[in-house]
Amino acid sequence: MTYCVGLLLNAGMVMLSDTRTNAGLDNIATYRKMFVFEEPGERVITILTAGSLSVTQTTMARLREAIDDKDASGETSIMMAPTMLKAAEIIGSTLASVKQDIDAKMEASKVSTSASMIVGCQRRGGAMRMFLIYPEGNFIEATEDTPFLQIGEHKYGKPILDRVVTMATSLEDGQKAALLSMDSTLRSNLSVGMPLDMAVIEEGACRVTMRKRIEKKDPDFARMSEAWSNALKDGFTHITIGGMGTITPV
Amino acid sequence: MTYCVGLLLNAGMVMLSDTRTNAGLDNIATYRKMFVFEEPGERVITILTAGSLSVTQTTMARLREAIDDKDASGETSIMMAPTMLKAAEIIGSTLASVKQDIDAKMEASKVSTSASMIVGCQRRGGAMRMFLIYPEGNFIEATEDTPFLQIGEHKYGKPILDRVVTMATSLEDGQKAALLSMDSTLRSNLSVGMPLDMAVIEEGACRVTMRKRIEKKDPDFARMSEAWSNALKDGFTHITIGGMGTITPV
Repeated sequence: MTYCVGLLLNAGMVMLSDTRTNAGLDNIATYRKMFVFEEPGERVITILTAGSLSVTQTTMARLREAIDDKDASGETSIMMAPTMLKAAEIIGSTLASVKQDIDAKMEASKVSTSASMIVGCQRRGGAMRMFLIYPEGNFIEATEDTPFLQIGEHKYGKPILDRVVTMATSLEDGQKAALLSMDSTLRSNLSVGMPLDMAVIEEGACRVTMRKRIEKKDPDFARMSEAWSNALKDGFTHITIGGMGTITPV
Repeated sequence: MTYCVGLLLNAGMVMLSDTRTNAGLDNIATYRKMFVFEEPGERVITILTAGSLSVTQTTMARLREAIDDKDASGETSIMMAPTMLKAAEIIGSTLASVKQDIDAKMEASKVSTSASMIVGCQRRGGAMRMFLIYPEGNFIEATEDTPFLQIGEHKYGKPILDRVVTMATSLEDGQKAALLSMDSTLRSNLSVGMPLDMAVIEEGACRVTMRKRIEKKDPDFARMSEAWSNALKDGFTHITIGGMGTITPV
């Protein structure tokens, strides 16, 4: 499985993904799930992927092919699309058509594939946009009310995001929230694994301003993870449940 | 949906369930999901239920019928079963057969039902046992390595349990952990809702020693919830991500 999260903040976007893929527990591998398309200063499109690797890889390959095509147009290439909404539509329809093609091949074995994506993007002069693209190609967008989007094993890491992330959150706090959300997921679900890929896209820059692969032995991650664990345990110790815990005869 | 959790601690068992059931968002109702069968001092069996209400209610009705049957035996009545393992088998096979009956009726609409249960039980002279019963009637048991079992929307509330619960956890801390686990779930998933039902079964007592319905306006729950929120936010504020957050050119 996978866990990916994207934060849409006033100051910019934070994108974080794990890298583990598996097809049964005896076949665990590490694959990149973060893809960046950029023309620095003009346009940046960052895509996080979850789901069937054959679907996501083929989708990325077709998107790249469409960009490199000499007959590319704003209808086919996400790097020429007139708006980021149009880019999301191209990604969505490419994903849906790849899924259809692969499902047709899989029909005999009664298996169907599935994949979803988070797209964080901005073009010069436009607003930052962040979309969650479903396997069927339709999508939803991050808003002020829900300034983060998640795909894959998203439930373990949602409580911390619900509590601390708003659009006014700083980029540094956004990275911290995304990393702690990932930390909770890593602890509770073996199928999500290090290393992690993190990218920060500052508002208006139209380029990835920071990109980092965080390895398993990263001392900063280990320190953060332990500090968070201690903070939770301390908090737990000091909380009382009052009358709820009174052991009285029923 | 539902969230239920059971903790198997050296000092006793803690059982907690929400009460919300829904069939679409315009039809949300409150039903009890915790059922207690006891012969105080002799035998206690507490059951938490998740899934299709028609399945869980019919299962509970059949279990009760089997207990009241004048021909009841250790093969059919959970209150006469010679061991708690046998009681779990009776519950599992009743659940599976109810599911089959109802699925047969549902076949025309190509819908299938599902339900699962947590059973925390002890008989005089025996050890406490806790089982998670799957829709097909098979089950797993809580162990020293995994001293808690969850059904329903279990992912949001798992990280806190992973961090603080061991078999050595006290009954008070166990209740606190279960309540905080529920609190995280309530905040992140609208389909899980107050009031809550909590029961504590002290080791050896073979009866429910504490049972409480925690209402939406419970001041102790509100206080605990807010204290936990503050502890998380304080912890979050004081943690640093070190070099991981360095904004450097890529």
